[in-house]
Amino acid sequence: MQVGVLGAGQLGRMLALAGYPLGLRFCFLDPAEGSPANALAEQVVAPWDDAQALTRLSECDVVTFEFENVPVETVEMLATRTRVCPSAGALAVARDRLHEKTAFQELGIPTAKFAAVGDEPSLRAALSRIGLPAVLKTRCFGYDGKGQRVLRTATDADEAWRELGGQPLLLEAFVPFSRELSLIAVRGRSGDTRFYPLVENEHREGILHLTRAPARNLDPAQQARAEEHARRLLERLDYVGALALELFDVDGTLHANEIAPRVHNSGHWTIEGAQTSQFENHLRAICGLPLGSASAKGPTAMLNCVGRLPPAARVLAIAGAHLHDYGKLPRARRKVGHVTLCGDSPADLEAKIAEALTLLEE
Amino acid sequence: MQVGVLGAGQLGRMLALAGYPLGLRFCFLDPAEGSPANALAEQVVAPWDDAQALTRLSECDVVTFEFENVPVETVEMLATRTRVCPSAGALAVARDRLHEKTAFQELGIPTAKFAAVGDEPSLRAALSRIGLPAVLKTRCFGYDGKGQRVLRTATDADEAWRELGGQPLLLEAFVPFSRELSLIAVRGRSGDTRFYPLVENEHREGILHLTRAPARNLDPAQQARAEEHARRLLERLDYVGALALELFDVDGTLHANEIAPRVHNSGHWTIEGAQTSQFENHLRAICGLPLGSASAKGPTAMLNCVGRLPPAARVLAIAGAHLHDYGKLPRARRKVGHVTLCGDSPADLEAKIAEALTLLEE
Repeated sequence: MQVGVLGAGQLGRMLALAGYPLGLRFCFLDPAEGSPANALAEQVVAPWDDAQALTRLSECDVVTFEFENVPVETVEMLATRTRVCPSAGALAVARDRLHEKTAFQELGIPTAKFAAVGDEPSLRAALSRIGLPAVLKTRCFGYDGKGQRVLRTATDADEAWRELGGQPLLLEAFVPFSRELSLIAVRGRSGDTRFYPLVENEHREGILHLTRAPARNLDPAQQARAEEHARRLLERLDYVGALALELFDVDGTLHANEIAPRVHNSGHWTIEGAQTSQFENHLRAICGLPLGSASAKGPTAMLNCVGRLPPAARVLAIAGAHLHDYGKLPRARRKVGHVTLCGDSPADLEAKIAEALTLLEE
Repeated sequence: MQVGVLGAGQLGRMLALAGYPLGLRFCFLDPAEGSPANALAEQVVAPWDDAQALTRLSECDVVTFEFENVPVETVEMLATRTRVCPSAGALAVARDRLHEKTAFQELGIPTAKFAAVGDEPSLRAALSRIGLPAVLKTRCFGYDGKGQRVLRTATDADEAWRELGGQPLLLEAFVPFSRELSLIAVRGRSGDTRFYPLVENEHREGILHLTRAPARNLDPAQQARAEEHARRLLERLDYVGALALELFDVDGTLHANEIAPRVHNSGHWTIEGAQTSQFENHLRAICGLPLGSASAKGPTAMLNCVGRLPPAARVLAIAGAHLHDYGKLPRARRKVGHVTLCGDSPADLEAKIAEALTLLEE
């Protein structure tokens, strides 16, 4: 069975690494030459709407994406020719913050107050309804903290408008969260689901920095609520594949922030830390295979390597450390790899995190 | 860093899958087109002594092999141009049963009585010294039960001679073992070592069928003895990389049977079942990186798929099952894949083994 993947970044690379053992072959489409997946699979280098490239992709048994900013038209066109999972409809909801927040609201999933902003009068109306502090975000194409500004004063609002105005925006109430959590959920073609344990994420400069899996002091009731939220979303979107649900923990109450319709950075720990990785389960789902267990093997952490990689020999000298080098050139704010740390106990894991952070910060 | 690999079979494929996350690139040499590693890395298709191919391989930072029947001359020639691990000297010992048994004897590692056999008089002399039952084996190129015959009567000896005579042979006393065990050992460039737990192997028609890891009722004293045997071998051979030591358990006493100077089928369980897989640790060793923990995560089994693969959907429906499809065409007696089973307890593992065996035997 051949899997077509839109996007050939590190997520695609890790999909291929998980898929070869299942007997899958891969064909990637990405406009950027020499992408991370390129070293280990066929890559078509072409624009997203290139007719010949889309013909090649449509020869695959199933097409998926590792990147939600692929044009919806590309996905819709491919869906007329082959199976595409998740669907173009699910992608259209997940890539637009207004649609995604509206879905949360309709499904009874707590989320911050929000309002669509198209022009300055609608921004003023939204501000008077939602109040400050608030966050102004682009509806599409935001990632790693890009395309969003926190507004604390009216002046901030003017500045943010100058920076972000002219494209569809969303104003959201600022959520005073105690921590950020996320849940990776997977749904198979036959509607079966698996939920990984909630994990706890720390960001730096808008970029995911550290994931602890499972989240510390995880309350089973909170896990159950998160799964119930994710289940409603999966069913509403008739979703097939892995989906990440980002949540704010506000004194124990979960507020949905956003979803990513794909394998997700906060699920990289699953490669070593879960019975079945998010990558393998995404592939099992889209290929119509039974899903694997999503339970954790033990306390695990994932640290992103941003900008450059730490020295491999020093990272691997930490007991229970595994390195994931994406084969990318170093560049500021670029995710070039990650380190997984497997702990014997929560305390042992914390010691390993401290050791690895020292290396990453040198 | 680029790793050259002699042989592009499933062991090479699994090396590449373990090596990409470490940021390694691969170049395989194998005379057979469309080999399992070919789908995910560069493969030079050429004879083992092809000058151009060897030039390409010698451009790699380090060269290793996944197959001990590579001509020693190929390895020696490459060693004049780049780093080769394990060394040509280690390969020369491990690929010849006479040298390997002699090494066991010199290192005080218990092994069956043996004698080199070159012609009929030496066979008669060996039989009178060793007695019956015995096993007549080719000194080189034997695998999966090929190139060996058990001799129970004088007639068996005549028949075996007609079949195997004309090449260097070894006669060994038959060891009345209660079970077959093996140990995967790894030694790094700086002499550091890691030992996986002893595993228990069942063969069918000379081909490995089932590995239970760790071996059932594993006695820590037996583990310690096996590690001591392996340590002596690693040091004698100034070995760098993974080495498999096959042992017979004779009522608690370990008799060395043979070594394989490479990653080994009885170590495939380590992909899911150990903290660090044998493939990753072999690569860490030959690349001069610190070795990872070799401890087991829990009771694990590996079943070989010989001849053909079972239906993926049914295998993956078993909780804790992982499939490894090598991308090979089905053929009688060919290893085309394996299934790993992760158990919650020894009893749970036995239930899963029974379930998987039913599928494999359908």
